[in-house]
Amino acid sequence: MTIAVLEEFPIVIDMPVAWGQMDAFNHVNNVVYFRFFEDARIAYFEQIQYLQEIEKTGIGPILAHTECKYKFPVTFPDQLKLAARVKEMGDNELSMHYLVWSEKAGRVAAEGTGKIVSFDYRNNCRADIPDAVRARINKLECRSC
Amino acid sequence: MTIAVLEEFPIVIDMPVAWGQMDAFNHVNNVVYFRFFEDARIAYFEQIQYLQEIEKTGIGPILAHTECKYKFPVTFPDQLKLAARVKEMGDNELSMHYLVWSEKAGRVAAEGTGKIVSFDYRNNCRADIPDAVRARINKLECRSC
Amino acid sequence: MTIAVLEEFPIVIDMPVAWGQMDAFNHVNNVVYFRFFEDARIAYFEQIQYLQEIEKTGIGPILAHTECKYKFPVTFPDQLKLAARVKEMGDNELSMHYLVWSEKAGRVAAEGTGKIVSFDYRNNCRADIPDAVRARINKLECRSC
Amino acid sequence: MTIAVLEEFPIVIDMPVAWGQMDAFNHVNNVVYFRFFEDARIAYFEQIQYLQEIEKTGIGPILAHTECKYKFPVTFPDQLKLAARVKEMGDNELSMHYLVWSEKAGRVAAEGTGKIVSFDYRNNCRADIPDAVRARINKLECRSC
Repeated sequence: MTIAVLEEFPIVIDMPVAWGQMDAFNHVNNVVYFRFFEDARIAYFEQIQYLQEIEKTGIGPILAHTECKYKFPVTFPDQLKLAARVKEMGDNELSMHYLVWSEKAGRVAAEGTGKIVSFDYRNNCRADIPDAVRARINKLECRSC
Repeated sequence: MTIAVLEEFPIVIDMPVAWGQMDAFNHVNNVVYFRFFEDARIAYFEQIQYLQEIEKTGIGPILAHTECKYKFPVTFPDQLKLAARVKEMGDNELSMHYLVWSEKAGRVAAEGTGKIVSFDYRNNCRADIPDAVRARINKLECRSC
Repeated sequence: MTIAVLEEFPIVIDMPVAWGQMDAFNHVNNVVYFRFFEDARIAYFEQIQYLQEIEKTGIGPILAHTECKYKFPVTFPDQLKLAARVKEMGDNELSMHYLVWSEKAGRVAAEGTGKIVSFDYRNNCRADIPDAVRARINKLECRSC
Repeated sequence: MTIAVLEEFPIVIDMPVAWGQMDAFNHVNNVVYFRFFEDARIAYFEQIQYLQEIEKTGIGPILAHTECKYKFPVTFPDQLKLAARVKEMGDNELSMHYLVWSEKAGRVAAEGTGKIVSFDYRNNCRADIPDAVRARINKLECRSC
């Protein structure tokens, strides 16, 4: 099945909802959605081999800002699709867009953004996004080219 | 000791950093900051008896949006001060401002916002903020009056 | 593929490891394994419709004791199989056995047990396991009969 | 105030219950108690400077087994006292005892144990507990000597 709203997202992973992620309101706790975003972000970073760059060059991503808009509460049991894409890329930062899609509801339960700064962990300052990483992002996002 | 930046926040709670809140980057995981915001938000709600309203009238808060700006990474061990205040209040929603203050660094590690909608859980729709809750917020925020 | 060690477990669910489940030692934090056990336990309870019993009769499960033996550290990325079975069943309690199986390592990363008491949430005391639940457990466990 | 049951525990830390630690049963989720044990264990390790040993000698603790006995459910709001002591110490392992004490109830909500192995992270094998660590444990436990 093709889910139209997910089509522009190069990374989509499956994630079951855990019963224990629900809080006393009997729906998934608001904090957990940022774990979902992180799951999608890390899957994206795996694809572009961004974290491996830290060991080689000391340059890696650091999260500077993130936000979530909650549309309706997710409950157990459900199967989610967690989606991530890069919306914009500057010299030393990029902004991502995330979706949490509920199979049970058949629609987007939450969406969010993340601003990631390219950081030189050795010299403790911003650094340009490594060329190899930038090239992989461009290739990944330009799927329909 | 008075911490100037916290002075405008009527709710400030103490929270130790847990070692297990750190991730593989050896600093507190980004997701945990939203638990910190929630801790401060719930302490605020306790003060204005907002959650108790749900049992009485069916009307309670629901989080519609939240965001966090990370300023520097928190690490174990540290003692945090988590602060919350209401910035604006409409008929059926309010916006909060949160701070995560690090004792070890002596400054704000992260700040964020939350948009809370007043929700009628029985009829599944927005509802005006109960008068008693509104009055307690006004009293709490107007400390210098 | 058949995994011999999982064969006696009627419930086996797939669970991806999340990067954020790792702690500062760069492996999945010890606490998370109990979430894995819970995931398997809840999947089991879903199968035997135990939680639904609470609404009908007020009788449901409560965890009285649990333990985990760690065999080797799980790391991201990995795909786990979480397994649960009922080892013994008394009048008003049952003991479960859990496995955390790592696809990357091809072996059991951790195993544990849980002692679940059948509890009457309305009268706040132990209660016999409901007959329907007991029958479903017996059916589920006696797969090779 | 002296709490008799905590007297034999050299490490006792204060920990507020977070609202978000409660699950859909409206009490603190079973998994969280192992975070409480970890909080107490790490506070103990800080006191005996065990984690610092890893950087110096490569030898540090690894958790091999842990268990929890739940006595009654903790709920928000509450203030906990988390206690840890070393019960037994062998050449290359030690066993700890943990308590979770509820201020609201005035009694022990849960207790548990942990088996910690002294591990040589460089050579990937068991190693004797470093003498300095052993001496600090003996000093810490022998408070009334």
